[in-house]
Amino acid sequence: MIRRKVKLIDTTLRDGSHAVSHSFTVDQVKAVAEGLDRAGVDFIELSHGDGIGGSSINYGFSAVDELTLLRAAGEVIKNAKLTVLLLPGVGTIENLKRAEETGIGAVRVATHVTEADVSVQHIRYAKSKGLFVVGFLMMSHMAEPEKIVEQARIFEAEGVDYINLADSAGYMLPNDVHRRIAALKESVSVPIGFHAHNNMGLAMGNSLAALEAGAEYLDGTCRGLGAGAGNTQMEVLCAVLNRMGYDIHADIYQMMNVAQTTVEPLMHRPQAIRTDSLMLGYAGVYSSFLLHARRAAKQFGIDIKDILIELGRRGMVGGQEDMIVDVAYELSKNRF
Amino acid sequence: MIRRKVKLIDTTLRDGSHAVSHSFTVDQVKAVAEGLDRAGVDFIELSHGDGIGGSSINYGFSAVDELTLLRAAGEVIKNAKLTVLLLPGVGTIENLKRAEETGIGAVRVATHVTEADVSVQHIRYAKSKGLFVVGFLMMSHMAEPEKIVEQARIFEAEGVDYINLADSAGYMLPNDVHRRIAALKESVSVPIGFHAHNNMGLAMGNSLAALEAGAEYLDGTCRGLGAGAGNTQMEVLCAVLNRMGYDIHADIYQMMNVAQTTVEPLMHRPQAIRTDSLMLGYAGVYSSFLLHARRAAKQFGIDIKDILIELGRRGMVGGQEDMIVDVAYELSKNRF
Repeated sequence: MIRRKVKLIDTTLRDGSHAVSHSFTVDQVKAVAEGLDRAGVDFIELSHGDGIGGSSINYGFSAVDELTLLRAAGEVIKNAKLTVLLLPGVGTIENLKRAEETGIGAVRVATHVTEADVSVQHIRYAKSKGLFVVGFLMMSHMAEPEKIVEQARIFEAEGVDYINLADSAGYMLPNDVHRRIAALKESVSVPIGFHAHNNMGLAMGNSLAALEAGAEYLDGTCRGLGAGAGNTQMEVLCAVLNRMGYDIHADIYQMMNVAQTTVEPLMHRPQAIRTDSLMLGYAGVYSSFLLHARRAAKQFGIDIKDILIELGRRGMVGGQEDMIVDVAYELSKNRF
Repeated sequence: MIRRKVKLIDTTLRDGSHAVSHSFTVDQVKAVAEGLDRAGVDFIELSHGDGIGGSSINYGFSAVDELTLLRAAGEVIKNAKLTVLLLPGVGTIENLKRAEETGIGAVRVATHVTEADVSVQHIRYAKSKGLFVVGFLMMSHMAEPEKIVEQARIFEAEGVDYINLADSAGYMLPNDVHRRIAALKESVSVPIGFHAHNNMGLAMGNSLAALEAGAEYLDGTCRGLGAGAGNTQMEVLCAVLNRMGYDIHADIYQMMNVAQTTVEPLMHRPQAIRTDSLMLGYAGVYSSFLLHARRAAKQFGIDIKDILIELGRRGMVGGQEDMIVDVAYELSKNRF
């Protein structure tokens, strides 16, 4: 029997950056990257939580410049591909160029699920530099499988190495994931990956649904460190995949040790599902809205749950943060 | 469309008792029970973590006598059924009799997955008192569906109100759960329930697999408080079931509030998946072995992971704690 291979992308040093307010230090990055590389993960993603160039007043400043962190990680990584995330609009080709000079091996170019076309020039640049390139669709619960297939074809035409679907709001249920990945498997020829959030307690269950539908790349973070209620817990995922007989390169005991001895001590708080992150998942709202919604709830004396539900109902997407106050104002009026 | 009903058993005050070393106070129990009852859960289970009569040197002493706690809960519960767990061998009919006098409405009689026959006299006693009675099979990953069906027929013959399957080690994957529940649905006429542990990150995913296979009762705890990596997180489960259109009696916002404002403050530590609990799940070992395994690992200078794997391989079950030292001794010899 040939066991099916699954490639693992550890994004502790990227999505996990949100959960520590972008405070990673050179020493932390070196320790985590070295541990992950030795344990055998295939890709180590490192960037500001919102991708390279994300350090800003809008998205929060990084304590240490990400180029410095990339160089530090590059020094200790022997086998894994050092990877960056790039959100066109947040980061630019100029950011990618500077990251590329640090010696990265891969880039994931991420857009809103209906806006793959804004990634084309970034993908072309990355390919011209010989990088491994991933087309990445965020907030994928907001589009039906047919629409996602249409967007994936844009990536496919540009020759990406695989296409990644992200449940950025932690909204989806296993069937939602399965339908989307299965549609992609039927329609495009490049491999598919999946990135989960645990806001509804389903990061692991959804990752297995993605695998069942044919995904070949899975994201995770040590101890689940990440935005909202966090990501698929990578060391747990390794144990689950090992039990299921998938062929993974990572050593499960070493992954458990990295998570416990290197990542756990740098966490600011446990990665639990609390009411706020649960409501993000329930309502299907982008994690970065949370802070704004909290402020607006306080200002207008209303329940943050009601604001998040309304934002989800209106299908608001990243960039529309300004409208959160308007929504809160309207909700406060309607009470009387 | 008639929406399918799902009944919810909150076991924060029973399985959660493990996670706070059986330290629940009268005030805590009243606050939690009142909150859960107001939010609308169907059953509120309260006992020592190992069931009534569990308070002992073997299983840990309760800070407050469980009969006192049961009376306190009974005072504040208006709608939910106050429920106890009874493990024949740990607790006795005498314990059940005293619990019954406090005014409980239901008992779950739990045995190892292959030993339902030891529960018969307890079930008969409970039924003679007019209690709602549940037959409960623990460590259900250790038996194949055919064997489980055979055991369930013992419960069915005694006229239990439903049969509950527990993944006590947090070992199972969604397909394992689905096969077992589907086999029961095909073969017995009483409703089926499911109790998950999150050691492999799959408490929620497995609960959905159980539902898909026909389960009508689901267990959970607020914030996931429970043995090992904890249980299905009840307030999250409520949100998931609500989104899926199931008919549940509990109000999802009130459940979130109970979890956040009443249960979270009484937790001793976050309910995370750490290496020990992950290894329990990976190896399929009973949670109560953990402390013994930790001690034996230290005594013989070997990795606790290796002990747990060996205990799982040998299929050791509750009651065989004494043999853990022997296993550790053998492993330490084999290193040379």
